[in-house]
Amino acid sequence: MSSLSSRMDSQVFQAFSTYATIVILKMMLMSPLTSYFRLTRKVFANLEDTKLVSSKEDKKLVCIDPDVERVRRCHLNDLENIIPFVLVGLLYSLTGPELSVALLHFRLFAGCRIFHTIAYIGALPQPSRAGSWILGMLVTFSMAYRVLSAVLLL
Amino acid sequence: MSSLSSRMDSQVFQAFSTYATIVILKMMLMSPLTSYFRLTRKVFANLEDTKLVSSKEDKKLVCIDPDVERVRRCHLNDLENIIPFVLVGLLYSLTGPELSVALLHFRLFAGCRIFHTIAYIGALPQPSRAGSWILGMLVTFSMAYRVLSAVLLL
Amino acid sequence: MSSLSSRMDSQVFQAFSTYATIVILKMMLMSPLTSYFRLTRKVFANLEDTKLVSSKEDKKLVCIDPDVERVRRCHLNDLENIIPFVLVGLLYSLTGPELSVALLHFRLFAGCRIFHTIAYIGALPQPSRAGSWILGMLVTFSMAYRVLSAVLLL
Repeated sequence: MSSLSSRMDSQVFQAFSTYATIVILKMMLMSPLTSYFRLTRKVFANLEDTKLVSSKEDKKLVCIDPDVERVRRCHLNDLENIIPFVLVGLLYSLTGPELSVALLHFRLFAGCRIFHTIAYIGALPQPSRAGSWILGMLVTFSMAYRVLSAVLLL
Repeated sequence: MSSLSSRMDSQVFQAFSTYATIVILKMMLMSPLTSYFRLTRKVFANLEDTKLVSSKEDKKLVCIDPDVERVRRCHLNDLENIIPFVLVGLLYSLTGPELSVALLHFRLFAGCRIFHTIAYIGALPQPSRAGSWILGMLVTFSMAYRVLSAVLLL
Repeated sequence: MSSLSSRMDSQVFQAFSTYATIVILKMMLMSPLTSYFRLTRKVFANLEDTKLVSSKEDKKLVCIDPDVERVRRCHLNDLENIIPFVLVGLLYSLTGPELSVALLHFRLFAGCRIFHTIAYIGALPQPSRAGSWILGMLVTFSMAYRVLSAVLLL
């Protein structure tokens, strides 16, 4: 067996770094999107934030808006799916998979999550969003299976 | 001091990979569990999701259900505890701890979190859930202490 | 190009380990802080938790408190920002940046997030909190840019 550390120099690890950064950036972009909706709809979570827009009725601004909640749910779903992908993917990259197989996993996941965001924010009819969510999860499960079968030590 | 990279080939790193994957999989299983409760209780967060079950009163389905909220709180608690464990554990594995000591940390944490989920979903009487939550956090703190004392560079 | 794995022995990786552990510990401290507020304000999310304080009106304790919600929003914001920093920072450390440049990134981010927590919990007037949030995000974006330009493989 070749050493784990030598696998960090492989193209698989480079591909992982690229796709991991892309999906993390996608996830992080949900934060400014939430702020954008909060500022344009004038809906805030904290009383002190109402100073960011000029208005005379501050108290009214601390409330719930369906579009803001939609973006927040999408962001939380990203946290629940993208972070496990990156963590499992990191270990997966070190098990020395074929570059083509690894790229298939990474591309499928990145595509799923970008489509998931479009389907969530755009409120596309189901099961478009459920499908992309399940497919993305299956990619992570597939990588987790490979990690466990390669390095199992309980 | 032996090199950090050589430690990636150690059994400690293998053990870390195994337990990290197990707790991440446990965390990911909360997502289908939420979906299961949402579909069986017919309680959804988005209007478009109500098409997933056949019903004539769509608007009624977008509401709050105590069991769904319970699973969601358990999932969020997992995010808040399991991800720090995996990230700190990765750095901890590279500081070259004894295999037996590392295994004690990993096994204790995995056991705590599996029990925590059972206690949360089953609504077991406190302090069973609080105890497993605190013990899991102490494991992560112990690993963080080891990382900081081994590689501190401010 | 020197090998990625050799970079794990660099001072940059040591500095990353230090700051990553510090910000993760800061994030984890939000959990006990939430518990502290819940216990002192007697406001719980689960019915079984009300047994943790002696009281005769259990049902009343399962409600919403503005201070508890504030801490919880701060914790979620940490999850949304600190975890991407640690994941991108890990890949960034492996691209072999200058130690001084890397330290600038890490110190700036850690400072931002510690100030962000103070501004959030203390409800300091805006834009103090928004500023520290944006600056912290820019640090992560800067590291992500470096990762993508160094290892892009699509």
